[in-house]
Amino acid sequence: MNWIIEENGFKPENIATNGNKFMIGNGYFGYRGVAEEFTKEHFPATIVAGIYDTVGTGWREPINVPNGLYTRLYCDGKEMRLPESEIVSHRQALDMRTATHHRNTLFKLGDGGTIQVSTERVASAVQLHVMAMKYEFICSHPHTITIETGIDGDIWDINGPHLENYRFHEESNGIVTLRVTTHEQKKTVVVAEAIDADFGLQPVQAGSKSYLRKLTVNCEPEKVYTFTKYVSIYTSNDEVHDPYTSAVETSRLAREQGYDAIHRAHAMKWAEKWTDVYVEIEGDEVAHQALNYSIYQLMIIAPEHSEKVSIPARGLSGQVYKGAVFWDTEMFMLPFYLYTSPALARNLVMYRIHTLEGARRKAVEYGFRGAFYAWESQDTGDDACTLFNITDVFTGRPMRTYFRDKQIHISGDVAMGIWQYYLVTGDETVLLDGGAEVILECARFFCSYSYYREDTQRYELLDVTGPDEYHERVHNNAFTNYMVSHVLDIAICTIQLLEQYPEVLESLVDKLQYSEDISRINKMREQLYLPQPDSNTELIEQFDGYFKLEDVTLSDLKKRMQNKNEYLGGGNGLATTTQILKQADVVLMLHLFRDRFNEHTIRANWDFYETRTEHGSSLSPCVYALVAAHIGYSEYAYRYFLKTATIDLTGESKQFVGNLYIGGTHPAANGGAWQAAIHGFSGFSYKDDTITIDPALPLKWTALRFSFYVLGQRYSASIDKQKVIITSQVNNTREQRFAILGTSIVCQPGATLEIKKI
Amino acid sequence: MNWIIEENGFKPENIATNGNKFMIGNGYFGYRGVAEEFTKEHFPATIVAGIYDTVGTGWREPINVPNGLYTRLYCDGKEMRLPESEIVSHRQALDMRTATHHRNTLFKLGDGGTIQVSTERVASAVQLHVMAMKYEFICSHPHTITIETGIDGDIWDINGPHLENYRFHEESNGIVTLRVTTHEQKKTVVVAEAIDADFGLQPVQAGSKSYLRKLTVNCEPEKVYTFTKYVSIYTSNDEVHDPYTSAVETSRLAREQGYDAIHRAHAMKWAEKWTDVYVEIEGDEVAHQALNYSIYQLMIIAPEHSEKVSIPARGLSGQVYKGAVFWDTEMFMLPFYLYTSPALARNLVMYRIHTLEGARRKAVEYGFRGAFYAWESQDTGDDACTLFNITDVFTGRPMRTYFRDKQIHISGDVAMGIWQYYLVTGDETVLLDGGAEVILECARFFCSYSYYREDTQRYELLDVTGPDEYHERVHNNAFTNYMVSHVLDIAICTIQLLEQYPEVLESLVDKLQYSEDISRINKMREQLYLPQPDSNTELIEQFDGYFKLEDVTLSDLKKRMQNKNEYLGGGNGLATTTQILKQADVVLMLHLFRDRFNEHTIRANWDFYETRTEHGSSLSPCVYALVAAHIGYSEYAYRYFLKTATIDLTGESKQFVGNLYIGGTHPAANGGAWQAAIHGFSGFSYKDDTITIDPALPLKWTALRFSFYVLGQRYSASIDKQKVIITSQVNNTREQRFAILGTSIVCQPGATLEIKKI
Repeated sequence: MNWIIEENGFKPENIATNGNKFMIGNGYFGYRGVAEEFTKEHFPATIVAGIYDTVGTGWREPINVPNGLYTRLYCDGKEMRLPESEIVSHRQALDMRTATHHRNTLFKLGDGGTIQVSTERVASAVQLHVMAMKYEFICSHPHTITIETGIDGDIWDINGPHLENYRFHEESNGIVTLRVTTHEQKKTVVVAEAIDADFGLQPVQAGSKSYLRKLTVNCEPEKVYTFTKYVSIYTSNDEVHDPYTSAVETSRLAREQGYDAIHRAHAMKWAEKWTDVYVEIEGDEVAHQALNYSIYQLMIIAPEHSEKVSIPARGLSGQVYKGAVFWDTEMFMLPFYLYTSPALARNLVMYRIHTLEGARRKAVEYGFRGAFYAWESQDTGDDACTLFNITDVFTGRPMRTYFRDKQIHISGDVAMGIWQYYLVTGDETVLLDGGAEVILECARFFCSYSYYREDTQRYELLDVTGPDEYHERVHNNAFTNYMVSHVLDIAICTIQLLEQYPEVLESLVDKLQYSEDISRINKMREQLYLPQPDSNTELIEQFDGYFKLEDVTLSDLKKRMQNKNEYLGGGNGLATTTQILKQADVVLMLHLFRDRFNEHTIRANWDFYETRTEHGSSLSPCVYALVAAHIGYSEYAYRYFLKTATIDLTGESKQFVGNLYIGGTHPAANGGAWQAAIHGFSGFSYKDDTITIDPALPLKWTALRFSFYVLGQRYSASIDKQKVIITSQVNNTREQRFAILGTSIVCQPGATLEIKKI
Repeated sequence: MNWIIEENGFKPENIATNGNKFMIGNGYFGYRGVAEEFTKEHFPATIVAGIYDTVGTGWREPINVPNGLYTRLYCDGKEMRLPESEIVSHRQALDMRTATHHRNTLFKLGDGGTIQVSTERVASAVQLHVMAMKYEFICSHPHTITIETGIDGDIWDINGPHLENYRFHEESNGIVTLRVTTHEQKKTVVVAEAIDADFGLQPVQAGSKSYLRKLTVNCEPEKVYTFTKYVSIYTSNDEVHDPYTSAVETSRLAREQGYDAIHRAHAMKWAEKWTDVYVEIEGDEVAHQALNYSIYQLMIIAPEHSEKVSIPARGLSGQVYKGAVFWDTEMFMLPFYLYTSPALARNLVMYRIHTLEGARRKAVEYGFRGAFYAWESQDTGDDACTLFNITDVFTGRPMRTYFRDKQIHISGDVAMGIWQYYLVTGDETVLLDGGAEVILECARFFCSYSYYREDTQRYELLDVTGPDEYHERVHNNAFTNYMVSHVLDIAICTIQLLEQYPEVLESLVDKLQYSEDISRINKMREQLYLPQPDSNTELIEQFDGYFKLEDVTLSDLKKRMQNKNEYLGGGNGLATTTQILKQADVVLMLHLFRDRFNEHTIRANWDFYETRTEHGSSLSPCVYALVAAHIGYSEYAYRYFLKTATIDLTGESKQFVGNLYIGGTHPAANGGAWQAAIHGFSGFSYKDDTITIDPALPLKWTALRFSFYVLGQRYSASIDKQKVIITSQVNNTREQRFAILGTSIVCQPGATLEIKKI
């Protein structure tokens, strides 16, 4: 596989999408794929996970930390910079294997000569506070070159300015620092920068928000001049005694270590990571690279350092979507981490446990009991989602949306994520450390939210919004009702499991005053309305009355649009009164709970809803891919898979909803691509103590190979058109039942199984 | 009192509103106040109660019958007509006492001379199919005058053309007929016209949609030339053997009788009517005339001929609002008829009984049991209200509204109307003739619609729209919940009453399979959530979450408007997310159920909601007047009363919502004016066998006198600042308890009581 993602030539219109595509990161922070000389109009961003700020009535969003890699180059006093200066060639590249960003630009000089600028940077996977850069230049002819490099504090901000009280300092050891304070919570953010250059270093000059120092050299032709930079970032969120001294010391040590040593350690760490997460696809280089690129994106944003942060919907690629954590994490990303990186998965799950109080506050706010998780969760678990989330393109007015109020399925997604973590890892500690409490509180919330209808003698879930956000405030959304039913089931399972720890159970029931809830849960489990497939058509109605909506084709609907950015949902949205849906809804439910339905039903619903789905969310195509693979629609499955897996490579995704910029990376789609390949094409699942593999590879895939963890044991799978080979790692400790190509078989630790297709 | 409503001078911009203001009618049909020469661009209309038509996907609406009074006048070949011709003077007048329309126009001729045209017309209160007109003209100098008169079938149509298959015929006796067929149901409509002229009658000439005949005369100066016309209207809705022969014969007889005799009989009938309905206000001529004008409007549209039609929201003034019957009838008009014209009230109530099947169909359509009455009811009781009732002014697109789906209080309004009829008239036959069934079916509908919430152990009414239509799809609208509670009560009362007729009760319970419902009704009565006044503020929340909405002032809200016709409700409406309401909601509830609340609560809510009410509906000011009178806000009460009572005199009402024309007469406001005067200022009510009079007259009113019926007995009341005098009519048969100015007293038949203010 080609591990290099690259773009040759320079297109100004790609600046924003390349910022996403060529991003680096280590879970502690993300750094957008920008040229070193870019200033805020080109969207540079250094986003540290889990630190948020609000200014005035603006949205609360992650802060963008000052850019420690900022560097400008002058040739004989004239600045050479993108996008303005003339170039001979330009290449931006990402080496996924080592998570290294490369930039090579050959600037054209007026005299016919050139200057080659080559840089390399990493967000260290070993020392998570460190970003290191190597900067080289070569002149074709003698010139005086001046470098200005430092820390640019004049950052790109959506609802800022979030940073205040800029304080620059140069330590005696040459480490330069910029300390700022956040507006809302007065948190300290420190960026320290060390430089190692053996030519022309001049004193630091501080401006109001940036500081720069010059390096000047009279270049000899064709000679390589190199300097390196060591940026470290700390905030008062970090568990260190003093962010300032930690930052200074970290940059100092990094400089001492040097770029090459840092890069070597970083690359080794990435080699380890890839051992667990790499997926090999034979016969389809495009899919192979795109899938591993998706995995790369998932790995650079996963918080291995903390269980108090999770993954925002746009990763660490900027301030878009308020840097908030959505259901994307549990429903779309978590399966990848669960099976490849259980420790990361544990952090994601623990984040929800740590934010339970926010979910309780939200439930109280809306008059319910239990835990109503935030639709857009930040550091405290309080909901960052606003009531007016979209601007009407026709009037310029804020539009009331019901994402925050009505997407109650979020509490189900969270509870299901915790339970899935427990099932796949066998790690009960998560339940004992708060997971059980979350599950019970989510179940209680659903009891509290439900209403009983006497006519039909059933419980119903009214006034909700399902995954298809184009239809807000509907009754009995099938996805939501099945999800709630599942949460009631796992609440009972949780209680049964805790019976092994009677003192824990007793104290929890006591603390939550939960005894009455248990009987309510049991009653509601039996009488909750679960929309059934129609006996003729097999169709499950997305919500009460959906089938009565106008049955217009997507292309006809789009012809009615008067503005390319107009929102199709909301009060007067074009899709609202039709059967057009934003994203997989019933079909996602059929995937999550597919044991409850026969294949004929799944197929009928896939057929029906697929033609009505706009895929206005990047969360949609992967679900259609996944389910298509199960029901033998391999061509559809492949097409939707590829659309998902390439989303951050092509940059072809919605950039605006209403007047709102929504660009950035798409970790949910990245996770969805993995799920489509592994859960979809390989037919991999783990349920009832059995790992199932039932492949349906796309036509051109000759083999699919991947590794996974179940119950702490590591396995690898190799699938081709003739057979499936499973290897249990040598140091595994327990046997495992598999169902492969319909054959049930137990695999002993260290054993290899080969099952041939009949 | 000045019985003459008049306008001197001619203003073309008043053509539409004067069509309403100077309307005549007799309950069978209404005829707009137009000049005889007006054609469709000036909105002439002859609207027959209860005959509807649809064309294509257009709204179903009443048909506009061909205009049998159409007349043009030529002087020496040049047409003299409004609004084009030059005039010296023009007067349009209505004599309310005799319900006669007058028109006097002095046309100016080129030679300095004039022609005076004077007409008079009535919609006979005796012979309901007949409209008669007298037409006179006088020339100041000799001229050749040609009259063209006939039937104009080229009518004003909103969603037409509704009329097809135009057939003209001239009978041997000179009666001319136009027969047409409606598009949808192929109903026959016949307009016959007889003319009586003693000069220059020429043969009939028929065009494609109109027919005209000429009368030509060489006028002597200052001589009065007169002809009369006798139009009769029949449709296949009428219970006659053959509409055609009935029409011909009716016109013939009318011509034989002659205009003066017809007018005499008509005027006598109106004198009788006024005996019952006239209200005298001393000391305030404006209010006096305006109130009786409101009563006039109510009398010309009331169907005394049929219990199968009711009164549309715009009376018989045109096709606006689809000619549909709304809650306006029960809530705003019915009290007037109940106390002044019980036979008319019975027809209105019976109309709802006859349309029960439509209400049942609507309930089934929405998945409920019982009777869900149409928001916009026409002949069958099926709902004429469309799902897209308003056009968005910004996009020109139809806007989804929830009038039809969610205004469930309509079934409560209907049931309450029937029960009020029974209480005030004592006429049990209405209950036995279907009224009891309607009440039980409405109660059943509400049981079916309700949900039980276990957290609070109560029934709730979710996803409804209350009177304030700017807030659609809310939960627990206080008005709706109290109304439903009332309907459950009267359902139980109805059953108790029917226990006197055990076989009727048994057969009804059996037919409806109602036994289980009775226990459900009893349970729900006890546990239905009724929003209570806040213990500190005394405020009752209009619906769940209303107090959390933005508290903006009405003037600030209006500043946000970008288009003068933009709809403030609906999905993205400006009022939707604020506390601004369209019309009285909680305050109307407080009026209807005022025994449940103390005056302090009523005042607190009036104060709070009054500042937040747009009065975007003509149904709103009268409610504020009514309640203001009760709580001693006499200045407010008077101002709101006058606004209501003059609505069709000033023509100052909303003419457009979105792009929709909504002009016409306002019978609900007319009824509201009567209620404000009688229920409000006189403090008149009938409850628990007692008639209460507790006056709070506006400052300048020195006396208020009116008559009323209770339990079939007729009384008159004379109220001034010092005393109240009640007279029981001589031929009354029963005694009656009164509570007057706080004194409880029994009035014997024929007696007069005088109670002095202390």
